[in-house]
Amino acid sequence: MTTIEVKTTTADYAVKVKIGSLMTVAQAIKTVWTPRRIALITDTTVGALYADQVQTQLMAGGFTVTVLTVPSGEASKSWAQTMRLVEALSQAHFTRNDGVVALGGGVVGDLAGFVASIYMRGISLIQLPTSLLAQVDSSVGGKTALDLPTGKNLVGSFYQPDLVLIDPQTLTTLPQRMLVEGYGEVVKCAALVGGDFWKLLQSIQQPDDILLLAPQLIARSVSFKARVVMADEKEGGQRQLLNFGHTIGHAVELLGRGRWMHGEAVAMGLVAVCQVFEAQGLTPVGTAQAVAARLAVVGLPTELPDLALNTVLTAMRHDKKVHGDQLTWVYLAALGQPQLQPVPLTDLATWVAPALTTVA
Amino acid sequence: MTTIEVKTTTADYAVKVKIGSLMTVAQAIKTVWTPRRIALITDTTVGALYADQVQTQLMAGGFTVTVLTVPSGEASKSWAQTMRLVEALSQAHFTRNDGVVALGGGVVGDLAGFVASIYMRGISLIQLPTSLLAQVDSSVGGKTALDLPTGKNLVGSFYQPDLVLIDPQTLTTLPQRMLVEGYGEVVKCAALVGGDFWKLLQSIQQPDDILLLAPQLIARSVSFKARVVMADEKEGGQRQLLNFGHTIGHAVELLGRGRWMHGEAVAMGLVAVCQVFEAQGLTPVGTAQAVAARLAVVGLPTELPDLALNTVLTAMRHDKKVHGDQLTWVYLAALGQPQLQPVPLTDLATWVAPALTTVA
Repeated sequence: MTTIEVKTTTADYAVKVKIGSLMTVAQAIKTVWTPRRIALITDTTVGALYADQVQTQLMAGGFTVTVLTVPSGEASKSWAQTMRLVEALSQAHFTRNDGVVALGGGVVGDLAGFVASIYMRGISLIQLPTSLLAQVDSSVGGKTALDLPTGKNLVGSFYQPDLVLIDPQTLTTLPQRMLVEGYGEVVKCAALVGGDFWKLLQSIQQPDDILLLAPQLIARSVSFKARVVMADEKEGGQRQLLNFGHTIGHAVELLGRGRWMHGEAVAMGLVAVCQVFEAQGLTPVGTAQAVAARLAVVGLPTELPDLALNTVLTAMRHDKKVHGDQLTWVYLAALGQPQLQPVPLTDLATWVAPALTTVA
Repeated sequence: MTTIEVKTTTADYAVKVKIGSLMTVAQAIKTVWTPRRIALITDTTVGALYADQVQTQLMAGGFTVTVLTVPSGEASKSWAQTMRLVEALSQAHFTRNDGVVALGGGVVGDLAGFVASIYMRGISLIQLPTSLLAQVDSSVGGKTALDLPTGKNLVGSFYQPDLVLIDPQTLTTLPQRMLVEGYGEVVKCAALVGGDFWKLLQSIQQPDDILLLAPQLIARSVSFKARVVMADEKEGGQRQLLNFGHTIGHAVELLGRGRWMHGEAVAMGLVAVCQVFEAQGLTPVGTAQAVAARLAVVGLPTELPDLALNTVLTAMRHDKKVHGDQLTWVYLAALGQPQLQPVPLTDLATWVAPALTTVA
């Protein structure tokens, strides 16, 4: 087992990575929680696979469990599901001493985390992420979120869990497309860290290789993310580095209206931002190609779809990373050497164009 | 001007109490905010009185202002208004560097504070409370809230403003019933503090006296609340003292379905809890009468309405103050000497009965 300690101003907690840990989940939870009511929030897909066994273990461990299931998919990060879950907690008389356990991917983690953060102004939360994307990214760092029609994750909170328990074994039941999309975030982390982490990616030549190396990939990604989050809990400074590839990525994801998964959009965004900064002379020529190579071997998209510049710019202006009249980009001065670059909104078209026109 | 400094783990801010301060609001805001977009959130009643002059000043001060108005009344502490306001911020391209200014009473402060806390995971917030209730209570301490059908304030967050600016002059436009209800919370604070604060209340013999003494009453109440909040930001310990009178009060308010204002329900709850603990021999006999006297002179209700015990108990079980199988009450060992008393939910009927039967 790898344990990564995360210390924030509001809470300290552990991220534990261990194969098979979902089979002993009650023991792990009992190390941080006294007996209490638990709302096990999951989705239709993950719930069908794991909810019964998790519920049985928790009940045997002395917890009272209410299973709350939302439809699989990004559409559940909504006001409607939030309201439904909060009402369910209230109807079941949940108090401030009870807790929420999120069992699922990023959608479940973001939604359940948000619900836990606002019900009675916050009740305890534990994350059991089951997708690679959630395991390497969304379950660590305390971000919770809902989507708005105008953009993803525009509503949410910073809310730390008491424990994140990651079982890489759950990846064996993950559809290959989702496994691969999660790897997009792993490539992002490795590009930001460089060194051994980047070298490790060279041994991944097909999707199945991700499964073989999952424990290492997760531990390295989480360690990196934890380090960044501890240095900058609320995205004032260093945490912005995690947005590498996300500026164009989020816009592509939004405009695709469900066509691309988050990790796929990030994959395109990673290559695109390298192209943009290569054109500016700030990223070494060949970086975009090197990043694209790591993504392409597992089948991730590396070229932006044919999108109108105007629609991309409109989507980018809604980005949470917009501060005043600027949008701060993350680029690589070299692999493992990320930098921040604020770009005035008025110049955005000029900057983005190189990434778009290479595709048209 | 009285300035009370509030220091919490997440933020330090000042509460400023000054007659006429709403007339120089932009100057005050410029001491804590750089120029930015401001969403001035208000309600139909307060907005009609003050929104124009606040907006004009803010614009003259270099801010860009969007006025967002919700219907007056508790019903606006809803998901529907939250969604509407959040969408409005997003449509107006508000970024993390922009801010929300809440202009109004407790409903506006709770709702606008919640919106500020969840939009993009939190944007800056300033409170301009205009009701006595908001000035002495809800605008200080960082609590934001929405109501659920099952109870008041069951959804919300802890979120600190950058500034609370209190202008007692606004109380002159407050309907007398609202002025008086706010005084219910002042009596609560004075009973908890005792000493000079309690003595000060003896000079209030009619509603108009509240206006004359408003700056002192507000400053003393806020100082007390700030001290408690600083000692216990999230209601684990000392902050529970602020719930004095609220355990029965909240239930009465909920069951009244709008018949009683918050401060009126608290007034009844203050007297009732003293009766309950006098019956237990834990509060000195005569305390309920002394508290009732201070409330009655301004016309606040001091006797509980005729309510079925069962409905009161059901409402109390939904109280956020329920922890596991207990509900913690606050009682007075003497004026100025509050104590906490956990009561098992199974014993609740026996405890509550004395307050209810004296009325039947």
